Amino acid sequence: MSAKPLLHQLVESLQCLPGVGKKSAQRMAYQLLERNRNGALRLADVLQESMRSIGNCEMCRDYTETRLCTICSNEKRDAQMLCIVESPADIAAIESTAGYSGRYFVLMGNLSPLDGIGPDEIGLTSLARLVSEQQCQEVIIATSATVEGEATAHYIKAMLTNIDRVEGSEPIRVTRLAQGVPIGGELGYIDQSTLSLSLANRQDI
Amino acid sequence: MSAKPLLHQLVESLQCLPGVGKKSAQRMAYQLLERNRNGALRLADVLQESMRSIGNCEMCRDYTETRLCTICSNEKRDAQMLCIVESPADIAAIESTAGYSGRYFVLMGNLSPLDGIGPDEIGLTSLARLVSEQQCQEVIIATSATVEGEATAHYIKAMLTNIDRVEGSEPIRVTRLAQGVPIGGELGYIDQSTLSLSLANRQDI
Repeated sequence: MSAKPLLHQLVESLQCLPGVGKKSAQRMAYQLLERNRNGALRLADVLQESMRSIGNCEMCRDYTETRLCTICSNEKRDAQMLCIVESPADIAAIESTAGYSGRYFVLMGNLSPLDGIGPDEIGLTSLARLVSEQQCQEVIIATSATVEGEATAHYIKAMLTNIDRVEGSEPIRVTRLAQGVPIGGELGYIDQSTLSLSLANRQDI
Repeated sequence: MSAKPLLHQLVESLQCLPGVGKKSAQRMAYQLLERNRNGALRLADVLQESMRSIGNCEMCRDYTETRLCTICSNEKRDAQMLCIVESPADIAAIESTAGYSGRYFVLMGNLSPLDGIGPDEIGLTSLARLVSEQQCQEVIIATSATVEGEATAHYIKAMLTNIDRVEGSEPIRVTRLAQGVPIGGELGYIDQSTLSLSLANRQDI
């Protein structure tokens, strides 16, 4: 340990957390020292254990401390549906809807050739292998509705259409999350592009 | 470790930090796993070390991992001035002004008889001993300008006036932080009580 007082070191280290500046770090340090030393010790243990043992699932690339994550190792999940997301946080978001029982694949980012992030970096080789091995019937591309997300979605769509399939099997259905007015959205506050998109894609009721 | 996935445990443990709910904890966990595993491991070490070794200074009750804190053990600080603050964070605030070279005493709270916090809980016995032993000449009471802070200040003032002093020594000067319009404060936005106080305490220029 260096010669700096421990409290300074603690305040400094806490700033490695996203969104935590010097003031919040100070508040956190004092609060932990004053009220929750046990919680802090437990946090230290779990941090250590997590950073050392959490890796990526061999199948879907989600974070897990085992070889396969809980979803990939769950026999009850529908192996014929695969949902492609940008980050593990997106899995948590979709799981919280309880409306999807298939599997996932995590890109851990988006295609971004200028930053040196090509198809290999976002795991598209493993994705292609997974899709052909598992005989998926439908792939839902759930990347963000941003420029990067759309570009990535298009690239994946093109890749999946050209994939080798066992002779005689159906072509894969590739879908994308629906876009339009969010629930509770007031038309006056919705941006033009979303509004014209949802007008063009209007549905019979 | 329990059977819960490590990632869940990590998100849960991070919520022991003040102001961190489930969403921020999730964001923190993912960010650390993805970008800063070394920072997280260092945080874990410092947390452990801090929670185990940081106690209170024997003299001023500030947090420190040694017997005396850096201020109390600094011979250059003026031992004849003592500034009484509510919390260690207040010391940091006053030190940052670089306008005070005396010593401190931390109450670690305010008097609050209803909550069972009496003079002993905020260390007034040690304060009295410290003041008489060190032959302080001035005590600055820098508790907050709240009802609790004012009450505590009055109690301390009364206690210090009755303190036993070595025969022939001057009576202690007890002061309180000046109150009034803060620098940059526009009169239109300042509350009535502060304004009438600063009117009553107007100063010659």
